[in-house]
Amino acid sequence: MARIRLGMVGGGNDAFIGGVHRIAARIDDRFELVAGALSSTPEKSADSAKALGIARSYGSFDEMAKAEAGRDDGIEAVSIVTPNHVHAAAAKAFLAQGIHVICDKPLTSTIGDAKALEKAVAQSKALFILTHNYTGYPMIRQARDMVASGQLGQIRIVQAEYPQDWLTSPMENEGLKQAEWRTDPARSGAGGSVGDIGTHAHNLACFVTGLTVESLAADLQAFGSGRSLDDNAHMMLRFAGGARGMLWSSQVAPGNENALKLRVYGDKGGLEWCQEDPNYLWFTPHGEPKRLLTRNGAGATEASQSVSRIPGGHPEGYLEGFATIYNEAADAIRAVQGGADRGTAMGVLPGIDAGMDGMRFINACVTSSASDAAWTTL
Amino acid sequence: MARIRLGMVGGGNDAFIGGVHRIAARIDDRFELVAGALSSTPEKSADSAKALGIARSYGSFDEMAKAEAGRDDGIEAVSIVTPNHVHAAAAKAFLAQGIHVICDKPLTSTIGDAKALEKAVAQSKALFILTHNYTGYPMIRQARDMVASGQLGQIRIVQAEYPQDWLTSPMENEGLKQAEWRTDPARSGAGGSVGDIGTHAHNLACFVTGLTVESLAADLQAFGSGRSLDDNAHMMLRFAGGARGMLWSSQVAPGNENALKLRVYGDKGGLEWCQEDPNYLWFTPHGEPKRLLTRNGAGATEASQSVSRIPGGHPEGYLEGFATIYNEAADAIRAVQGGADRGTAMGVLPGIDAGMDGMRFINACVTSSASDAAWTTL
Amino acid sequence: MARIRLGMVGGGNDAFIGGVHRIAARIDDRFELVAGALSSTPEKSADSAKALGIARSYGSFDEMAKAEAGRDDGIEAVSIVTPNHVHAAAAKAFLAQGIHVICDKPLTSTIGDAKALEKAVAQSKALFILTHNYTGYPMIRQARDMVASGQLGQIRIVQAEYPQDWLTSPMENEGLKQAEWRTDPARSGAGGSVGDIGTHAHNLACFVTGLTVESLAADLQAFGSGRSLDDNAHMMLRFAGGARGMLWSSQVAPGNENALKLRVYGDKGGLEWCQEDPNYLWFTPHGEPKRLLTRNGAGATEASQSVSRIPGGHPEGYLEGFATIYNEAADAIRAVQGGADRGTAMGVLPGIDAGMDGMRFINACVTSSASDAAWTTL
Amino acid sequence: MARIRLGMVGGGNDAFIGGVHRIAARIDDRFELVAGALSSTPEKSADSAKALGIARSYGSFDEMAKAEAGRDDGIEAVSIVTPNHVHAAAAKAFLAQGIHVICDKPLTSTIGDAKALEKAVAQSKALFILTHNYTGYPMIRQARDMVASGQLGQIRIVQAEYPQDWLTSPMENEGLKQAEWRTDPARSGAGGSVGDIGTHAHNLACFVTGLTVESLAADLQAFGSGRSLDDNAHMMLRFAGGARGMLWSSQVAPGNENALKLRVYGDKGGLEWCQEDPNYLWFTPHGEPKRLLTRNGAGATEASQSVSRIPGGHPEGYLEGFATIYNEAADAIRAVQGGADRGTAMGVLPGIDAGMDGMRFINACVTSSASDAAWTTL
Repeated sequence: MARIRLGMVGGGNDAFIGGVHRIAARIDDRFELVAGALSSTPEKSADSAKALGIARSYGSFDEMAKAEAGRDDGIEAVSIVTPNHVHAAAAKAFLAQGIHVICDKPLTSTIGDAKALEKAVAQSKALFILTHNYTGYPMIRQARDMVASGQLGQIRIVQAEYPQDWLTSPMENEGLKQAEWRTDPARSGAGGSVGDIGTHAHNLACFVTGLTVESLAADLQAFGSGRSLDDNAHMMLRFAGGARGMLWSSQVAPGNENALKLRVYGDKGGLEWCQEDPNYLWFTPHGEPKRLLTRNGAGATEASQSVSRIPGGHPEGYLEGFATIYNEAADAIRAVQGGADRGTAMGVLPGIDAGMDGMRFINACVTSSASDAAWTTL
Repeated sequence: MARIRLGMVGGGNDAFIGGVHRIAARIDDRFELVAGALSSTPEKSADSAKALGIARSYGSFDEMAKAEAGRDDGIEAVSIVTPNHVHAAAAKAFLAQGIHVICDKPLTSTIGDAKALEKAVAQSKALFILTHNYTGYPMIRQARDMVASGQLGQIRIVQAEYPQDWLTSPMENEGLKQAEWRTDPARSGAGGSVGDIGTHAHNLACFVTGLTVESLAADLQAFGSGRSLDDNAHMMLRFAGGARGMLWSSQVAPGNENALKLRVYGDKGGLEWCQEDPNYLWFTPHGEPKRLLTRNGAGATEASQSVSRIPGGHPEGYLEGFATIYNEAADAIRAVQGGADRGTAMGVLPGIDAGMDGMRFINACVTSSASDAAWTTL
Repeated sequence: MARIRLGMVGGGNDAFIGGVHRIAARIDDRFELVAGALSSTPEKSADSAKALGIARSYGSFDEMAKAEAGRDDGIEAVSIVTPNHVHAAAAKAFLAQGIHVICDKPLTSTIGDAKALEKAVAQSKALFILTHNYTGYPMIRQARDMVASGQLGQIRIVQAEYPQDWLTSPMENEGLKQAEWRTDPARSGAGGSVGDIGTHAHNLACFVTGLTVESLAADLQAFGSGRSLDDNAHMMLRFAGGARGMLWSSQVAPGNENALKLRVYGDKGGLEWCQEDPNYLWFTPHGEPKRLLTRNGAGATEASQSVSRIPGGHPEGYLEGFATIYNEAADAIRAVQGGADRGTAMGVLPGIDAGMDGMRFINACVTSSASDAAWTTL
Repeated sequence: MARIRLGMVGGGNDAFIGGVHRIAARIDDRFELVAGALSSTPEKSADSAKALGIARSYGSFDEMAKAEAGRDDGIEAVSIVTPNHVHAAAAKAFLAQGIHVICDKPLTSTIGDAKALEKAVAQSKALFILTHNYTGYPMIRQARDMVASGQLGQIRIVQAEYPQDWLTSPMENEGLKQAEWRTDPARSGAGGSVGDIGTHAHNLACFVTGLTVESLAADLQAFGSGRSLDDNAHMMLRFAGGARGMLWSSQVAPGNENALKLRVYGDKGGLEWCQEDPNYLWFTPHGEPKRLLTRNGAGATEASQSVSRIPGGHPEGYLEGFATIYNEAADAIRAVQGGADRGTAMGVLPGIDAGMDGMRFINACVTSSASDAAWTTL
């Protein structure tokens, strides 16, 4: 089947996440990157495009959206990998042209932008896919499947956490570009750690359990001197249906790189998973010994095998999980192009709804914390 | 040096914790168990005493306190290992006779009892030692020492948890004696999981960091059908001085046996420790690789070595940590008998203050949860 | 820089390793797969090529080598991913045309074939690269670097093992194609587990330590009923310079997927690494605490960082390690095309020498075992 | 039941293993230590006895054996915890008096001594128990039980290892007493690492599998400069019945404290256990997920529960495993005193046969290595 013609907004120079998206798009060979508006100026963009072997470079996403829409061989989809505050405007430009959008998370930097984008998605026929990449890990798919099929029984407790340590020292004052924009409310939005990584923990908890957070009580802190956004957040969660949870996000916990961890307990069993060792899933049927399920190993279900590439014991990693989002995005795009309904085509892919959930989550965290951790509805 | 003559209240039949105290008292050979009021009736007590080779058996702790105080070779100390609601009365009986008390935790089942006991301790010349046994683990001693000496810098974050799974099913309705009294407010007090195990997590967090919890916001749940005490508790903590924390206690998390875990993060480094693997302490100086410190191994400090018995790589366990409390209790008793001040003699041993902290903790948890998790001062 | 035009021999249908090579070639975007002789018949080859979107399909590698050599836009390099007994003939066909060869391991199925291939490599100007892919793991690069820079001191002990469990039951009698050819001497060569996975352990031990195995004493077993090739092998190793080692390969050890593990000990320190958790490297400077080095984390050296793609804590896996071999093959090919010397261009890439070492290793294993584990020189 | 009156030979001053035996004898409260010949001179012995609160001190084991045999309240059993070369003479002295002997391992320092001791045991009515303490670990009992009941099927492969690192540097030249006698052939016997720790690995492999090593091929090294005994040993094993194995013992592997590890694989499943984490046993039924069995947890069998003291998740350690040997020795002594047959009374306790096996193992290692690793019958 022919590869999907892809464009990219952002991701020039040494931007981390742009490179990740490009590798993810290549791994399963479903996309061909042919156009880009990679940087903030036409010159930089052209330089980056040339270095990456991308055929067509544009000075802005607006220019790109219009020009590509006018070509017979124009892009069918675009990846948006800019800082958060640019997501909404860029996505709207492509959606308006009927070009499918694959957008990095969180959705936007403000609730206002998010609502406008939600409307734009509703009015477009194109797909909007949000790369909540951790949902692409095979053992996360299996965990979701096991919860859905009742192997844990009624879910009671959800423990989610995403600690990092890279902002323990004030890196934003030492010229680290990543640290600068992620600690800047104007570019990141109202949430610091809650926006950047808390949203991943929240998304994963909901994805695996199939539950929705109804309300939360959050206590946000900015430990780094002079920092205006939270770099550590503690919160308690109440899920629809009675389950309860805790969520911790931190950028100031020395010894943690990207230790996203999810633990789910029901009245029949428990599951534990950590992103840093993603090929393992611990499962305890209550009253039986703990089992170490492995990707594509004994005990792997169709849900995880279908998104695995290589045998058990040969670890897949972050890039393969990310690639699964792209692979499924390709399936969805081809399905919609073939006449399928957007909702059906999306399958388990995170989209605008997951994005709005994330925005409400960030907003609730900030609102709750400002009210001394009062319970706040999402 | 001569062994200390010891009595015991409770601990007859197959009571779990009584046997633990007896082994702990034997390991370092500092005590001789010579008297007991082991059960609720004189007959059962006598049977248990005989089976255990204990010389003198009494029908009640009152009788025992008076009789032993009147003997030249009477007990010097007593271990109280009954259900929680008996602690206060038993302890007061021995303190009144000047007999040193080693009491299981939590302190009592009600705040009223606790305050009365606090007064009795103040009025006695005898020592009151509370067996917060996890403080006896060598790597916990080392962790406390490392925090105190500044190796973690200013403490910012404390993550404490103690999940179990034994009450996932309603064991209290199936004849399990342990489950019966631990889920009964009349015998356990107002706290369920928070009283039984949450207090351990709270105590350990304070012991290691040297910090005090000022207030907490708690959300308690009783997931087990028909259960009146919490079997799962989520809470956020605010420590004096600005550190923040989270604490989770649970008796309904399948796959967890006694997974007490403490993680402490400062601006210079982080520590992680788990009770199920107690000979290890993870230490990350910020910006350097994680180090696996082992009991009596390379990197062990005087604080841990002095309470270790055997070389690194030969694991010590729960009973040895418990024995260290007894060993230090023996030191403290001999010191006080030799004229030392009570406070000085106690050293790092947990006593009435730690017990009152625990009671205030339980009370605050219950109060906060009843107010929809409002911040509650301890 | 333009992508290298690549062909492939083998890898049609559902052959495992062909798919791996294709992903590995794509990840860093240095190759474009444009031609193939993917299966044993022209029809099957054409079907596979079409399914994979490969422009030109050939009925045999001979036909392909000649045809591509004659095109201006012919392939610059070829990946050979057939069963072992085809490697030599296919490689020689392309080397004869000056087309660079990237060949799966082990080198060939017989020593005779290996020697002929060695001669063909010597007579060609093209590169010959053997995909000993585990050498591409970042922490393996770091381990090699740390040994070379003296951080372990004089190497004394090497413990290498590669246990699997997939042949515990007689899968070859149950229609599993992988199991059929890997247990067939005609297609796999004289070594069973020693050829398929023992060679990986041997290669990795030598790659990391920089040492050569002088002699070995091997005890090979075929536990599977009716199996003619070894499915389990025990051996002791003597390295040049005085280091000693052990090596275990097994396909019949239940609970092991691909548990390739290397441990190296010198008089100043020790290293431990396992393929199933490849982002970690344990390092103990003698007399100091164990350190957990992570890929791209604190303590990562240039040797590992330069072959990493994403931040520490976001796991890379088997495919990324494999991709590094392809990425460096691309560098080497461009360097040679630019006039560089073949040896210089190869850098740390495994080539014909590593392949011959592997063949001598297999041969010595079989010879030694036939002589009741007599010491046998490689 | 009354405690058994116990004496001790060796274990004065700061001798490591003597203190371990004393704690082990106390933990289950079955022994009362009443006599000792603790050191090499009467004065030192008396000082040690006084410090330990032991009632009767003797200047030599001969004196002690005779004197105690003559007392109505004389010792019923004696623990021998001297360096290896004293074991035989001391044991014979007590056996001759009908006093039960609990002896540290290895049996003796020479085969001649061992044979003489074997004869003495045969001629005595007293029990001879060798403290192969690792056989007392609950999960080792469970492993043995699982193999015996066929859960692993036909045993094929045994991987045993015991690496340490304490002799990496030449500690014996730096005044460390432990290092001095353990590297001295006159006091330790012909085996260095093979005698001190290799015997543990060998014993455990046989204890768990129920198999006997028929022959071995060993390559012993003395890496430490000037060291005459092996400090590292590699060997291959052939068991009666067809199973094959490898064994590694080392005192020079930095990063290993007491990493005794046993892995056993049959045609139906595999087991893995490590002494440093003794409360865990990994079990993989072939084709199913790996299970983490825990001491006294879900999946624990009678074989492990009956030698456990506390609930799962509360770790027991080295001292409790050692105590189990003492507890069972007490059972055996009381049984024999009650008229039971010696063999029946011993149960699974290691005795003279296990000791002779160990001596033959050491001898075979040394003999094989001297013949360039020729297969040598035990």
